[in-house]
Amino acid sequence: MSLRGFTLPLTATGRSSIVAPPPWHYSGEIIAVDFTVSVQAAAALLPAGLVPVPEGSASVVFADWCSSSDHDDRVLADPAIGQYHEAYVLLHAMRGDRKVGRVPFIWVDSELSLLRGQIQGFPKKLGQIAMTRPTLLGRGGVRKEPGATFAAHATSHGRRVLTVGVQIASTSDRLPRAASLPLIHTRVFPSIDRPAPAVHELQIGTIDGFACGPIHVGPAKLEIGKTEYEELEGLAPRSVGSGYVFSMAFSVLGGTVEPI
Amino acid sequence: MSLRGFTLPLTATGRSSIVAPPPWHYSGEIIAVDFTVSVQAAAALLPAGLVPVPEGSASVVFADWCSSSDHDDRVLADPAIGQYHEAYVLLHAMRGDRKVGRVPFIWVDSELSLLRGQIQGFPKKLGQIAMTRPTLLGRGGVRKEPGATFAAHATSHGRRVLTVGVQIASTSDRLPRAASLPLIHTRVFPSIDRPAPAVHELQIGTIDGFACGPIHVGPAKLEIGKTEYEELEGLAPRSVGSGYVFSMAFSVLGGTVEPI
Amino acid sequence: MSLRGFTLPLTATGRSSIVAPPPWHYSGEIIAVDFTVSVQAAAALLPAGLVPVPEGSASVVFADWCSSSDHDDRVLADPAIGQYHEAYVLLHAMRGDRKVGRVPFIWVDSELSLLRGQIQGFPKKLGQIAMTRPTLLGRGGVRKEPGATFAAHATSHGRRVLTVGVQIASTSDRLPRAASLPLIHTRVFPSIDRPAPAVHELQIGTIDGFACGPIHVGPAKLEIGKTEYEELEGLAPRSVGSGYVFSMAFSVLGGTVEPI
Amino acid sequence: MSLRGFTLPLTATGRSSIVAPPPWHYSGEIIAVDFTVSVQAAAALLPAGLVPVPEGSASVVFADWCSSSDHDDRVLADPAIGQYHEAYVLLHAMRGDRKVGRVPFIWVDSELSLLRGQIQGFPKKLGQIAMTRPTLLGRGGVRKEPGATFAAHATSHGRRVLTVGVQIASTSDRLPRAASLPLIHTRVFPSIDRPAPAVHELQIGTIDGFACGPIHVGPAKLEIGKTEYEELEGLAPRSVGSGYVFSMAFSVLGGTVEPI
Repeated sequence: MSLRGFTLPLTATGRSSIVAPPPWHYSGEIIAVDFTVSVQAAAALLPAGLVPVPEGSASVVFADWCSSSDHDDRVLADPAIGQYHEAYVLLHAMRGDRKVGRVPFIWVDSELSLLRGQIQGFPKKLGQIAMTRPTLLGRGGVRKEPGATFAAHATSHGRRVLTVGVQIASTSDRLPRAASLPLIHTRVFPSIDRPAPAVHELQIGTIDGFACGPIHVGPAKLEIGKTEYEELEGLAPRSVGSGYVFSMAFSVLGGTVEPI
Repeated sequence: MSLRGFTLPLTATGRSSIVAPPPWHYSGEIIAVDFTVSVQAAAALLPAGLVPVPEGSASVVFADWCSSSDHDDRVLADPAIGQYHEAYVLLHAMRGDRKVGRVPFIWVDSELSLLRGQIQGFPKKLGQIAMTRPTLLGRGGVRKEPGATFAAHATSHGRRVLTVGVQIASTSDRLPRAASLPLIHTRVFPSIDRPAPAVHELQIGTIDGFACGPIHVGPAKLEIGKTEYEELEGLAPRSVGSGYVFSMAFSVLGGTVEPI
Repeated sequence: MSLRGFTLPLTATGRSSIVAPPPWHYSGEIIAVDFTVSVQAAAALLPAGLVPVPEGSASVVFADWCSSSDHDDRVLADPAIGQYHEAYVLLHAMRGDRKVGRVPFIWVDSELSLLRGQIQGFPKKLGQIAMTRPTLLGRGGVRKEPGATFAAHATSHGRRVLTVGVQIASTSDRLPRAASLPLIHTRVFPSIDRPAPAVHELQIGTIDGFACGPIHVGPAKLEIGKTEYEELEGLAPRSVGSGYVFSMAFSVLGGTVEPI
Repeated sequence: MSLRGFTLPLTATGRSSIVAPPPWHYSGEIIAVDFTVSVQAAAALLPAGLVPVPEGSASVVFADWCSSSDHDDRVLADPAIGQYHEAYVLLHAMRGDRKVGRVPFIWVDSELSLLRGQIQGFPKKLGQIAMTRPTLLGRGGVRKEPGATFAAHATSHGRRVLTVGVQIASTSDRLPRAASLPLIHTRVFPSIDRPAPAVHELQIGTIDGFACGPIHVGPAKLEIGKTEYEELEGLAPRSVGSGYVFSMAFSVLGGTVEPI
């Protein structure tokens, strides 16, 4: 039989595959915090060709995503499939004279997102992620307004890896760097019959339809934890900058790749 | 030592207790579907003193809650504590000449909610619950507008127990019955040294600050599953009515109890 | 209708109740570590009438349980119901001239165990618990034999609360104190209409059929973490004693209660 | 920087990678059930070059694994990493004149296993899996002895996909086919910049150190469920054969690959 599927499992129809090919669409609620790290530590997490910005700028980003897929209507239809949380560290870097972003560590609470990330070169692991979501009525939660605190945290393998809080103070017109840097990923897929990887290449996503809602800004808190399973020690914040709460959307149409 | 706590664990401060005493505040996003059941089957799930409405009216309600507690600021501050999903069946009943609601089965994805529910007489079990949440931007999700479908489902012990879908058609001024019936619960806590329960009484919550946002209405789908662990067979829908998508908020100040 | 059930939910048959009445039977694999704590800190976690032993003796106990219930055959039949992990701290105390045990904090990964615990006065919270299980063949794991290390850890609300390791050195004939002290619990169930609890009493389980397999002993490691949700600070180990790996079984027939 | 890692995430040390390269060692407790399916349906799930055996033989296999890795001592040391459950369907097929096995669907409850499987071509998805484990003492569980029933089930995305039960009747000397067929996998890793996959090849694991404990055999039950996410319909059992409960171990040293 000729089996089909963008990813495993393969079947005659391809409908059992975990991931369908792009385009993929994303609409999310973001909580982000800027911070600075040791430039040396950042350099140790960047691939050849990227150097840290001199200020050691970095961000932690939490996202509560709704996603859809042009080739799989179940992603939009089933909230257990298309909706998920993710949390990541973003290092701000230079590639030649261009400012770019690099994600050394990222956690998600979704199988689809885990695999979809591996395909793009996002180094996703599973985690448990919680984010304050805004409410519209009553006293059970907070609204996106001055004075409100939005919190988020991520746990992986029983260790709290990221904890943030942002107290909204005002609204800004300026897009946070965490939302504006083009991301450079490394796609890796091992061989099983030889040491050299079967796939090892840089990848930059082809993004379309970027949109951003009002950007709420305020003072922030950030803690980066320790775990046996990721090398987070070097990312200890030297200083913590502003925090951001905003809605964001975009589509991934595919990507371009370059040899390492 | 004199140990304190509204619930276990007890400590000198009472701060380790899972639940703090009311008031408790709730702000939620609701997806609800009306349906009808066999009057005889509904009767078999009602306590003495309640009879089904002649039409066999019932509702399935999903809620994405943010909650807070006057006596425990961690509930509002930590999204992993105060935020959770719940899904329940609501039987519409008469108690004398008063229309009331009774919840025979309910699932939640939160330890706090599970215990807080047991205290009120909500028969909460743990489940995995997913609900379409509205998005504000982009193509990753849907908005609360005509044509959009909001889906929700609940799974308990590996069995899908509730699956609903509502396609928004219009906005209504009328509060769904699922949001307006006062609920009659049975508080039960067993003895360990004798057959008779230590606590066995009816409970009606003291509700304050009820608020409801725009009510989006449309045709709905509903499936009620089978499981070894709840008697859902009798709840098979005879007909499925309208579905509702709306925001709702209220506070629970405490409750009044009556002997069985 | 007359509704039945040892716990909620109540139905005509009682078969939807989370917990059936005792007898309950337990067969488990145990990893335990003895340690000592500040006597003052231990005293702050003991109910009136109990005082710490002068040495500040305490234990951490992990259990991988299989359980069954005389009145609910689903508990034995369904491994997702009857099997679960639990982890707890045990303080060694004197009640008059009798040595007893008190469990100030305990975590489980099962709804049934959570509720069954609340009924007995075990202050159970939900957690994620992992324990090395012995293997019989091959190189994927370890056996219960000298040199092998058995590890276990518990996480609650994104914080690692307990981490232990025991390296088996020899076999002992002496039952660890963690398995031999009678436990004194406090049963608590709040009122909803008044401040005083509806149930507040001491409880001692009626145990039958206690059995214990070979007791493997060796040097141990223990870390007790910090969390916003339990007061674990006082339990910091002053010294860490031996660790134990063994099989244990017993039945709970019910319990006796005393006023506080 | 030159970044290292068998899989993502890449770092200077390679220690943050989810998977370390083989050898990988496995020691497990197995519950398996033989059944037969429509030959036509089996053919639709086999890659070119494989044909179903004429009898339509197939098996469902559950495994409670302990695993270790020569290049990552954390896998053996941390039970939350190395221990996991998996459940799969195995189709018995001919490749030329050689009997082989093919796994069209498989679920695991571990991130490590999910990714380690993708590397080998196991089409792993995440699931919730429960298996009766044998006990040594008391009445909380069952032993591997005649009359005892071992049950197992797997749930994926809120749907029960596999449910089995085996009642032990006797011990057999014959290795179940589920444990003896060499497995033919398809390794697939998509491109992001073109339709053709970056990796698409057949893979056969290089197995070493196979060992099997006493094989307990008896009559079995099997249910295969329905889900939106896998094409399980064709796998409806035509007949259900014997069930098996046994310990099994082996090592994966790597694999050999062939073009599709």
